[in-house]
Amino acid sequence: MAKVNPYEVSGNIDYEKLVKQFGVSKMTPGILKKLGTENLLLKRGAFYAHRDLNKILKGKFAIVSGRGPSEKMHIAHLAMFKAVADLQKKHGCFVFIPFSDDEKILVKGTDYVKTQKMAIENSKDILALGFDPKKTKIMFDLKHMNQDVYNLAINASSKITLSTVKAVMGFKDSKNIGSFFYPAVQIAHILYPTFKRKVPTIMITAIDQDPFVRLARDVAERMGLKKPGALTLKFLPGLSGGVKMSSSDPKSALYADDSDAEIERKIKRAFSGGRETLSAHKKYGGNPDIDASFQYLKFFLEEDDNKLAEIYKSYKSGEMMTGELKSYTISKAKKFFAQHRKNRSKIKIENYLI
Amino acid sequence: MAKVNPYEVSGNIDYEKLVKQFGVSKMTPGILKKLGTENLLLKRGAFYAHRDLNKILKGKFAIVSGRGPSEKMHIAHLAMFKAVADLQKKHGCFVFIPFSDDEKILVKGTDYVKTQKMAIENSKDILALGFDPKKTKIMFDLKHMNQDVYNLAINASSKITLSTVKAVMGFKDSKNIGSFFYPAVQIAHILYPTFKRKVPTIMITAIDQDPFVRLARDVAERMGLKKPGALTLKFLPGLSGGVKMSSSDPKSALYADDSDAEIERKIKRAFSGGRETLSAHKKYGGNPDIDASFQYLKFFLEEDDNKLAEIYKSYKSGEMMTGELKSYTISKAKKFFAQHRKNRSKIKIENYLI
Repeated sequence: MAKVNPYEVSGNIDYEKLVKQFGVSKMTPGILKKLGTENLLLKRGAFYAHRDLNKILKGKFAIVSGRGPSEKMHIAHLAMFKAVADLQKKHGCFVFIPFSDDEKILVKGTDYVKTQKMAIENSKDILALGFDPKKTKIMFDLKHMNQDVYNLAINASSKITLSTVKAVMGFKDSKNIGSFFYPAVQIAHILYPTFKRKVPTIMITAIDQDPFVRLARDVAERMGLKKPGALTLKFLPGLSGGVKMSSSDPKSALYADDSDAEIERKIKRAFSGGRETLSAHKKYGGNPDIDASFQYLKFFLEEDDNKLAEIYKSYKSGEMMTGELKSYTISKAKKFFAQHRKNRSKIKIENYLI
Repeated sequence: MAKVNPYEVSGNIDYEKLVKQFGVSKMTPGILKKLGTENLLLKRGAFYAHRDLNKILKGKFAIVSGRGPSEKMHIAHLAMFKAVADLQKKHGCFVFIPFSDDEKILVKGTDYVKTQKMAIENSKDILALGFDPKKTKIMFDLKHMNQDVYNLAINASSKITLSTVKAVMGFKDSKNIGSFFYPAVQIAHILYPTFKRKVPTIMITAIDQDPFVRLARDVAERMGLKKPGALTLKFLPGLSGGVKMSSSDPKSALYADDSDAEIERKIKRAFSGGRETLSAHKKYGGNPDIDASFQYLKFFLEEDDNKLAEIYKSYKSGEMMTGELKSYTISKAKKFFAQHRKNRSKIKIENYLI
């Protein structure tokens, strides 16, 4: 059976089932239109679910999208934050990006100093995607915990029973007490812009993080705050054809700091929807729907809808060879990351600190 | 059976048993001598136990003594903090006094705004006892949570399992997650001076708070910090003869803000060790060991050892009547609180904030 919670994703994920199980709503063309950006993940269906966006998009709102620091950020992480940046550009909204270095230490047991370094590196990758310094704040929990966030966390933690956290997160009594408390910190993150600015928050995450949104929604009104909404992402396919990319399996994804040579090597070895032989491919055509390179073009690299449709058709018909598709993807990816490195080198974290 | 933990004190308390159960050491004349003050609680045996003081008193140390804000502070609370102030005078040590407004909200469910008000009022009563502003810091958790304390709490919380907190505090799964986390904040308080000043801490509390010291001692070295010691107080008898004073039973104790009329009324109604009739009292004598007024003189009000011994003898022999003992106690208490009110009115909290 599939398992999807903030600390475990395994099995075959049935996104339709998750909609029911988690109580989210499916994305609609109307909401996509209101969101109103040409962001690839949005226009190509990766944000497949939401909470309360019909209501929240009628007025002002803020966006919260956080990051549990990891050694590497892969292209799907970048793409999600690109969607946040694009929504900020469109709507002029305040964006809050908390880095849960505390969570990593508590739940994953990662090293203290290393976690803080990872948080800093991750923040540069995220900010490189184009946030407005006047409307964007980041915090590293262990560096910037303040009265407001701590108060929100204590307040939230007073309204959630241990039984609830056990049920949602699946922790046992042998787990440390900080792990049980951390959801309250996450809720504090989600509600912080609402507390400061009196506008509802839209939490932007992958579906596995939705339990935190549910907990935040459970307590928000009892804390005198507006219920947060959510914009929810599917997992995006890995290079090896797996269910999702991984920050700890280098073969599974392009990472933010991959060199050109690594990009090339990874895509060349990526899972392909092509046939085993050239002649079979020409005769029967390839399968772009399972081809990792094509998925990368679709969700991350090919802005041009016509061009993407053309590649789809031509690969499916067998006209375009796998090698050709891959080298096109490689050239697009190299350009994407060259631009990313350039943007990243200009980022000054100080301009965004809470 | 007696129950003694930070959130429940009931039954007949056997202090000898607690020494074994909690693993504290009994106070010795040698340690009392090293502590070296004429403080009443110290010289009259109320601090009956300790942890590691033989070792810690050999070098520099800091003192931590906190307060869970309550509506009223009674005379035993004041007396304990007077001991802290007296030890600071003698040893010139740094004193840290954290106010756990967060704990009150989490564990007791008290009102947010009210708790913060109580913390401020309590802090004035404590600081009135004579702390050196250059060597004393207070914090209200919900107002002054900072990076250092939060980091210590997260670090501690990563090293304590839920099972341990359940066993020590007796909480059930229906309790909120903040209550399970709070011990980590308390440990952060205890270890904060050690973290900042590299000296061991002596935690000064009543015996019911000792479980927090034990938890702090369990994790300190794994956090790279010196193990804290402790100086541990018995419960002090209430005016109604109960096992301990209560901040919520006005008859049980003199409160810091009692008026002269209240002081008089409370002591007049206090539990007496006198005989039922004047003639019986004259004939058989009273019992100062159970007499609330005498206990008040002994632990809080009578500095003069000779005078105290004289009263003891004279009440026991039946020479001194209960009325006489009470009116002497009333006059001493009125003086004590008049001085306290005067000292309190001069306190500026700002001079002590972390």
